[in-house]
Amino acid sequence: MKHTLSTIAVALTAIVGITAVVKTTASPSEPISVIKPAVITEPEKVELGKMLYFEPRLSISGFISCNSCHNLSLGGVDALPTSIGHEWQQGPINSPTVLNADFMLAQFWDGRAKDLKEQAAGPIANPMEMGYTHELAVDTVASMPAYVARFKDVYGTDEVNIDRITDAIATFEKTLVTPNSPFDQYLEGDKKAISEDAKAGYALFKDRGCVSCHNGPAVGGTMYMKMGLVKPFHTDNPSVGRKAVTGRDSDKFVFKVPTLRNIELTYPYFHDGSVWTMEEAVNTMSDIQLGRLFNEQETAQVVEFMKTLTGEQPQIVLPILPPSNANTPRPVPFK
Amino acid sequence: MKHTLSTIAVALTAIVGITAVVKTTASPSEPISVIKPAVITEPEKVELGKMLYFEPRLSISGFISCNSCHNLSLGGVDALPTSIGHEWQQGPINSPTVLNADFMLAQFWDGRAKDLKEQAAGPIANPMEMGYTHELAVDTVASMPAYVARFKDVYGTDEVNIDRITDAIATFEKTLVTPNSPFDQYLEGDKKAISEDAKAGYALFKDRGCVSCHNGPAVGGTMYMKMGLVKPFHTDNPSVGRKAVTGRDSDKFVFKVPTLRNIELTYPYFHDGSVWTMEEAVNTMSDIQLGRLFNEQETAQVVEFMKTLTGEQPQIVLPILPPSNANTPRPVPFK
Repeated sequence: MKHTLSTIAVALTAIVGITAVVKTTASPSEPISVIKPAVITEPEKVELGKMLYFEPRLSISGFISCNSCHNLSLGGVDALPTSIGHEWQQGPINSPTVLNADFMLAQFWDGRAKDLKEQAAGPIANPMEMGYTHELAVDTVASMPAYVARFKDVYGTDEVNIDRITDAIATFEKTLVTPNSPFDQYLEGDKKAISEDAKAGYALFKDRGCVSCHNGPAVGGTMYMKMGLVKPFHTDNPSVGRKAVTGRDSDKFVFKVPTLRNIELTYPYFHDGSVWTMEEAVNTMSDIQLGRLFNEQETAQVVEFMKTLTGEQPQIVLPILPPSNANTPRPVPFK
Repeated sequence: MKHTLSTIAVALTAIVGITAVVKTTASPSEPISVIKPAVITEPEKVELGKMLYFEPRLSISGFISCNSCHNLSLGGVDALPTSIGHEWQQGPINSPTVLNADFMLAQFWDGRAKDLKEQAAGPIANPMEMGYTHELAVDTVASMPAYVARFKDVYGTDEVNIDRITDAIATFEKTLVTPNSPFDQYLEGDKKAISEDAKAGYALFKDRGCVSCHNGPAVGGTMYMKMGLVKPFHTDNPSVGRKAVTGRDSDKFVFKVPTLRNIELTYPYFHDGSVWTMEEAVNTMSDIQLGRLFNEQETAQVVEFMKTLTGEQPQIVLPILPPSNANTPRPVPFK
C-alpha cells in the first residue's frame, strides 16, 4: 500500500525534489483513510505538467491530449465505455480516472506501468491513442521557445526529452486529488457529514467484504484481484488483465482494483465500461465477487455510501499554450 | 460595424439583460479600435454557458465539445487546417477563432449565422461535427438536476431548450475578448508598447490598404470580401463563401474578413487553412488582394505588427460538469 500512513507522507516531505506530497490520515479502526489536499512544492513543474497534460500537439493529429480521455471536467475520465483514439479508433478498455491515481500501486488496469510517469509515456506513442512518437513529441515541445524556457527553469537545462515531459505530466497529475468528501469529513469526526443510509451502506460495505479489496485512501488501487472471483464475469472485452504483464495463467482476468473515490462521476463501470449505474455495479460485484446479493434497500444504502466518496474536484485554470512556429512539426490529422 | 463606437457600448450598458458588454475605444484617427475587458453583468449565465461550452455530451459521441474545435488553450481554434468531427470526419473549412467573435458582423466564414447564439446551434446538430440533435441535446442537459437548477436560476423557470442552451453559450462567448494587447497599449498612448519595426509594419498595413478590410476592434470581421480580388486564390477547398447564403454568383469566393486579433495563435490561415506562417499569409494577401508584393523587410515588419495584436487570453477555470444518471441519453461513440 502506498501513502496510507501519514508518517510516510511526513517523511517524504523532507526529501528534496518531491513535488506534490499527498498526505492521508489513517484511522486505526477504519480501512479507508482520509485524503488531504495536495501540498505543491514545485509550482513551476506542476504548471509545465498542466500545459503538457492539455497539449493536443503531443498527438499526431494535434487533436488529442491527456485531457481528452482523462477529462478534468468529468471526474478525470471520458465517461465512455472505451476511449476514442487517433482516427476514431475504439480503445480496448475503459479509461481509468486520473483523480487520486497516484494512490494506485501501479498504473493501467493491468498495472503494466509502475507509476504515473511511466504511464504518461504510453498513450503518446500508442498508435490507437495519440498515435505520435516520443521523438516527434519531443521535437514538437522543443520547437517552442516558451516551452524550452520553462524546461530550463524547472530542470536546470533547456533540454526537452520524454523523461522530463512525462515527469512534468506526472507531477501535475499528483496534484489531482479530491479531498474533503463527505465521507472524509465523516471519518474526521463530523458524524452528520453523511446520511444514516450512507452509514448503513458503509457498514454493509465493510461487513460483506467489499472493503477487503476497496480499501486505503483511494478505496481501491491497493491490490490486484480476479474479476469474477466467485462467478465468471461475462463480457465481450478481450482484456486478460495481469496475465498480459506476468504471463501467468493464474493472472488471467486479474485486474487492479479500481478506486471508488468519485465513483458517481466515473461511469461507466468495470474495465469493459459495460455498466452505467452504481446500482448495477454494486449488484454485479456482490454477485460475482462476494457470492451474496444485496437486497434492494441494501444496494441503495451502499450506493448512498459510495456517493459520499465524491470529493472536491481540482480547480484547474486552463493553460494557455504557446503557438507553433515554422520549426514545429505539423499535425497530420488526416491521411 | 458593430461595437466600434464606445458610445454604442455605453448605451447598451443601460439596457437590462445585456450580459457581457464589450467596450471599445475608437481613436478618431485610427482604423483599429482598442478592445476593453468584458464587463460581466450576469455571471451565473456566463458560468452556465461555460459549462455547456465544455460539455462533450452535447455531441452524440460524448467526446466533442465546443472547446474541441475552439480550444481556449490554443487561441480559440484547433490549429488544424480543417476540423475533426464526429467519427473523425474531415470538416470543410478552417475553424475560426471564438476569441473576440462577437465583434464580427455575422458568424461562420460565410456569415450564415447572424450572431453567436445562432452559430452555437449549428455544430451540435451538424452530422459532420458533433452529430447530435437539438432534441437529444436538450434531453441530455435536462436529465441532470444540477443543470436544471442553473437554468431555473438564470432564466426563471426550469425549462431547458435549445434557445436557452445557445443563449447561455453565446453569453459565455461574449466574454472571450483579449484586451491589453501591445497594440492596444500603443493606441492608448504608450508609444513604447510596440517596436519600431511593428510601427513601420502598421504604417505599411495602412498605406498599402490591408486596413481597408482589416479594421475595427477585431481588425477584421466588419465586412465580406472576395478571396482573390486581384488574382485568383488557388485552393482545393470547395467552399464558395457567401454565394452559399445569398445564391448570387457575384458572392462566389466572398468570405467574411477574418479577425487579425491573436493571429499569431490562430494558424493555419485562410478559410482552407492552407498557410502555416504569417509571412506566407502576408505575402499571399498582398499579392492576390492588393496586387503589390511586400519586400522581405516589409513582410517582416507587417508580421511584427500583427504579433502585437495578441492580447490577454481569457483566464478560464475549467468547469466541473454534473454526472449523467439513468435518465441521461447514453453517448453513441461507435456504431
